[in-house]
Amino acid sequence: MVLINGKNNDKVSVFDRGLQYGDGVFETIAYRNGKPEFLEQHLERLFTSCDLLSINFKQQDELLSELALVCEALQQEQAVIKITVTRGEGSRGYFSDNSALPTRIISTHSHPTFPEYYQKDGVLLRFCEQTLSINSRLAGIKHLNRLEQVLARNEWDDPDIAEGIMSDDDDNIIEGTMSNLFIVASDKLYTPVVTRAGIAGVVRAQVIQLATRSGISVQEQIITKKALAEADEVFVCNSVIGIWPVSAISNKLYPVGFITQFLQKALAECDK
Amino acid sequence: MVLINGKNNDKVSVFDRGLQYGDGVFETIAYRNGKPEFLEQHLERLFTSCDLLSINFKQQDELLSELALVCEALQQEQAVIKITVTRGEGSRGYFSDNSALPTRIISTHSHPTFPEYYQKDGVLLRFCEQTLSINSRLAGIKHLNRLEQVLARNEWDDPDIAEGIMSDDDDNIIEGTMSNLFIVASDKLYTPVVTRAGIAGVVRAQVIQLATRSGISVQEQIITKKALAEADEVFVCNSVIGIWPVSAISNKLYPVGFITQFLQKALAECDK
Repeated sequence: MVLINGKNNDKVSVFDRGLQYGDGVFETIAYRNGKPEFLEQHLERLFTSCDLLSINFKQQDELLSELALVCEALQQEQAVIKITVTRGEGSRGYFSDNSALPTRIISTHSHPTFPEYYQKDGVLLRFCEQTLSINSRLAGIKHLNRLEQVLARNEWDDPDIAEGIMSDDDDNIIEGTMSNLFIVASDKLYTPVVTRAGIAGVVRAQVIQLATRSGISVQEQIITKKALAEADEVFVCNSVIGIWPVSAISNKLYPVGFITQFLQKALAECDK
Repeated sequence: MVLINGKNNDKVSVFDRGLQYGDGVFETIAYRNGKPEFLEQHLERLFTSCDLLSINFKQQDELLSELALVCEALQQEQAVIKITVTRGEGSRGYFSDNSALPTRIISTHSHPTFPEYYQKDGVLLRFCEQTLSINSRLAGIKHLNRLEQVLARNEWDDPDIAEGIMSDDDDNIIEGTMSNLFIVASDKLYTPVVTRAGIAGVVRAQVIQLATRSGISVQEQIITKKALAEADEVFVCNSVIGIWPVSAISNKLYPVGFITQFLQKALAECDK
């Protein structure tokens, strides 16, 4: 099902600035147990992202009603809901007087299935050659300019490799192509800062909150390749996969550790 | 007029990767004197850009036929033709097996009108706060990830300011939001390298060629703000505007110099 500005429709104008310039933002939300998970957090990030890009999105009530319609129509127990908001249609050129109605798109997708051992025994990762540009203004925002992730994800097609790790141009570890990354060292949790590159994931924020509440020290900081290599545990997370322990990055092996397992359980139990 | 994959149509699927991720490239071509200007150069850049992004675009003959149709249908003497090629429709996720047909879009737009003095007396520029990220893999390519230009262009709405200058994160001058930039110093021509940030413009390449053929020394190199401030002449160029002399950047004034005027004439006379 696809709703565009409330109408059953799966086509947008070629003059939509989302297509012309990637001028918009999106959210990927897991639908499980009869509801969209972490909906409040996703919507908050969506609205904040629009503000950060000066997209004049006022149709928040309409979006919520449409989201309810989409959920009602869902037949599957599990699904993925994607919300996209663009700056709307515009004439040629980068300038926008923001008089256009932003385009809001809600689409539902089948929930991907992953091998069961991903959650239990962990996944295999690789390092991507494609880097993430440093841009303080755009960092953190889940906007539609995603060519770097596209190029990084298309560096491999080996189905045994679940995710690729991306560094910024200063060679610091930032995140996976579709996930955020955490490491555990001496019983403390660390995750890369995403104020210069990367995306401030909704589940990333949940993990930080859950760890803090449980008395686990969490630091957002620069993570070097050396720190990653020396980590006791590594995991990646996003809204669809939850938390995947990392069992290996290239040839370096990691155990599925206690803190990772603890946070997996804690995450699975929240927002229920 | 809009043709999508050869059909009269101005809507694309919401699942088009151009909309989802800005996963595509575009060309903006001036239609003047009964033909698209620098068509060969634009097409060459388009096809090269597809190759650089591994977009499997084989419909080059179809594109040419459709372009001919579009030109035949044009009523105006002057127009702008935009060609967009995306990686095509895809399922959710950054990975693409490139089995989808790339989407090719040809659209015609009215030619913008600018005050006559722009060409003769020059234009007023400003410096943009929004920077261009450094990314060697994507630099030069006219791809659809253009949020930086959108944010930069929307920093001002004073109609007297014709263009904004963007620097990279190392504070070097790269280009305008929609144009390339040249400076003249001691009768030599300089333009920023676009191998780490920026777009390798078709008219930029023409200017370099015309200058070289006329015995004017041209260097592509790093241009600092200091070098720009000390320049004898400054101009910006793109396919639609041709060459605009720069009369002022913020409060710093520049004369409309001989080399700028010479290149304006040379550019106006080529591809006729």
